[in-house]
Amino acid sequence: MTQNRRHGPRLTALAESLPASVPFVGPEAQERIQGFEFKARLGANENVFGPSPKAIDAMERAARDIWMYGDPESHDLRHALAAHHGVNPENIMVGEGIDGLLGYLARLTVGPGDTVVTSDGAYPTFNYHVAGFGGVLEKLPYRDDREDLPALLARAAEVDAKLVYFANPDNPMGSWLTGAEIEAALDDIPDGTVLILDEAYVEFAPLGTAPQIDIDDPRVIRMRTFSKAYGMAGARVGYAMAAEPLITAFNKIRNHFGMNRAAQAGALAALADQQYLAENIARVAAAREQINRIAAENGLTALPSATNFVAIDCGGDETLAKAVLDALVARGIFVRMPFAAPGNRCIRLSCGPDRDLALFASALPGVLQAARG
Amino acid sequence: MTQNRRHGPRLTALAESLPASVPFVGPEAQERIQGFEFKARLGANENVFGPSPKAIDAMERAARDIWMYGDPESHDLRHALAAHHGVNPENIMVGEGIDGLLGYLARLTVGPGDTVVTSDGAYPTFNYHVAGFGGVLEKLPYRDDREDLPALLARAAEVDAKLVYFANPDNPMGSWLTGAEIEAALDDIPDGTVLILDEAYVEFAPLGTAPQIDIDDPRVIRMRTFSKAYGMAGARVGYAMAAEPLITAFNKIRNHFGMNRAAQAGALAALADQQYLAENIARVAAAREQINRIAAENGLTALPSATNFVAIDCGGDETLAKAVLDALVARGIFVRMPFAAPGNRCIRLSCGPDRDLALFASALPGVLQAARG
Repeated sequence: MTQNRRHGPRLTALAESLPASVPFVGPEAQERIQGFEFKARLGANENVFGPSPKAIDAMERAARDIWMYGDPESHDLRHALAAHHGVNPENIMVGEGIDGLLGYLARLTVGPGDTVVTSDGAYPTFNYHVAGFGGVLEKLPYRDDREDLPALLARAAEVDAKLVYFANPDNPMGSWLTGAEIEAALDDIPDGTVLILDEAYVEFAPLGTAPQIDIDDPRVIRMRTFSKAYGMAGARVGYAMAAEPLITAFNKIRNHFGMNRAAQAGALAALADQQYLAENIARVAAAREQINRIAAENGLTALPSATNFVAIDCGGDETLAKAVLDALVARGIFVRMPFAAPGNRCIRLSCGPDRDLALFASALPGVLQAARG
Repeated sequence: MTQNRRHGPRLTALAESLPASVPFVGPEAQERIQGFEFKARLGANENVFGPSPKAIDAMERAARDIWMYGDPESHDLRHALAAHHGVNPENIMVGEGIDGLLGYLARLTVGPGDTVVTSDGAYPTFNYHVAGFGGVLEKLPYRDDREDLPALLARAAEVDAKLVYFANPDNPMGSWLTGAEIEAALDDIPDGTVLILDEAYVEFAPLGTAPQIDIDDPRVIRMRTFSKAYGMAGARVGYAMAAEPLITAFNKIRNHFGMNRAAQAGALAALADQQYLAENIARVAAAREQINRIAAENGLTALPSATNFVAIDCGGDETLAKAVLDALVARGIFVRMPFAAPGNRCIRLSCGPDRDLALFASALPGVLQAARG
């Protein structure tokens, strides 16, 4: 066969300009590079306690029916979520994790040159999606280790932002605003700006952390997930809640048959088992306390957290935190650290069972000595 | 809380212009509307015979580990696929079904006003993605119930197409070109055009249907899936094979953590069980013969098929075929029909076990009488 040297694909100018980047290198890739497996997997904001046994049962049963496509409307899950939240099914969009939904939302609203506001050091995958559609990111610093919602909204007004990203509780710091603080800021959302309220971790947070917002308010879209408190990160099930016109708009562009059928069934069963959810949240809270104790025993400060992870201030700068992280990883304990100052003085550790935290506790003194030396 | 009447989200002009459409209404939605469940589910091009028991086992095991995100690189699956196809892992991109991969490819290459060539009546989800990025579709008629590859490529040259879509075997007609016919056409791919060779059904086709194409040829991208011959439609695992630069480009935009972890494990196990695959293909071939017989017994012509479905010529026009389809659906037998002439003189039926085909056989005489009457 003749193989002429033709120039092949013509990417769009935007696609051509993008790096072939990865928001995060996965732990499996790290394991392959380093040549050994992690003994404790506490770096990817996963919920090591896992999902309800009823969710596992549902996924196992669904595995036998996997020859069928999932329901493209995620009807049953959407209706169950609507009942759970006291909204209409038309206010809920189920998608391939919050990551998938953030990508769709960026595609719907962000074109080349459009401005989007977020915090410097907040969720990189959101930034990846915005950049992927040609958006221009305005990044504001954290204030007191918290995302600075009033400043984000003020900047959004200045730059006529299409979107403002605000995670509550925050990742990677674990900090949070109260629902009342958020409610008080809502009237400062500029005309034509949508506030993305990423509540991936909100089930772990104190009561009152989730603001009361009229579901028909066109200025806000809330993101929730089964990846964190429900312990099903590998299933890829997230959902957005918003006024019906914005939810409907996802149907213009989403991958309608993109949901895994077993994941739909698992999420439905997980949602129905609120008893397990409550127990899981209690386990996470106890692990958080345990991490606090381990940090204190080593002279470090664990930051207050409303999530299933804890940022531990290593007491120095980014270089020291990175040395602590590297030493932990070398001992088989997978953790990560915030990307930007001032958070990057910290390492970030997920809550896990006693076994995992004992490994961390036993490694930490030597790790700190190595990192400081 | 004050609820000012603000104008809410500002969609991009492109998003604003798109309909909130669905490429296909799912069978579950049909069941909800009609108020009863289908007795035979033969309309969605699913593989009713299902996946290897080893794949089901792997998904069940993975359900217990679902608290972990899947490997964003799909490393193990990608390497196994590379070995299976005799290419490098860098030539393979795993994604959320071919649907997901077609969406990414459209995003990479198609901007507003860019032209894309396909056949009138070919895969609607591809068209949906192209339109979703502002592309302009040129649709050519089928010739002798086959996609007309030479005509598609000639038109691509005329309109300077970014992409040409060509499914082999074809959906919805089940027709195919030989690998040699495709190889002979390759040199007519215009400069700067990429031929998408959608081989979703190729494992069902006669040996020699898959063309020999140098994996480094920059003019072609091949799409394969675990949804059809491997019987795992609900898992959402597809893969693209192409020259490394195009494969790498997917990393610019894809949802890196979008793959379901259990689906990755299931696909890996399914790929390893080629014995089951061969048996499944034999079962499909037998069912195809059975469908041919049922059609003949009713005076209808089943079109030759290299897939796991059969288009049955109802012997009249679109109206008659639609009446046949409606009468089958009313009797609890889910089938679909091609969207465009001349295919829309047919209904399209998936291969299934004897139980399902017996239901079809027993319903068909009455259905035809009703449709003709």
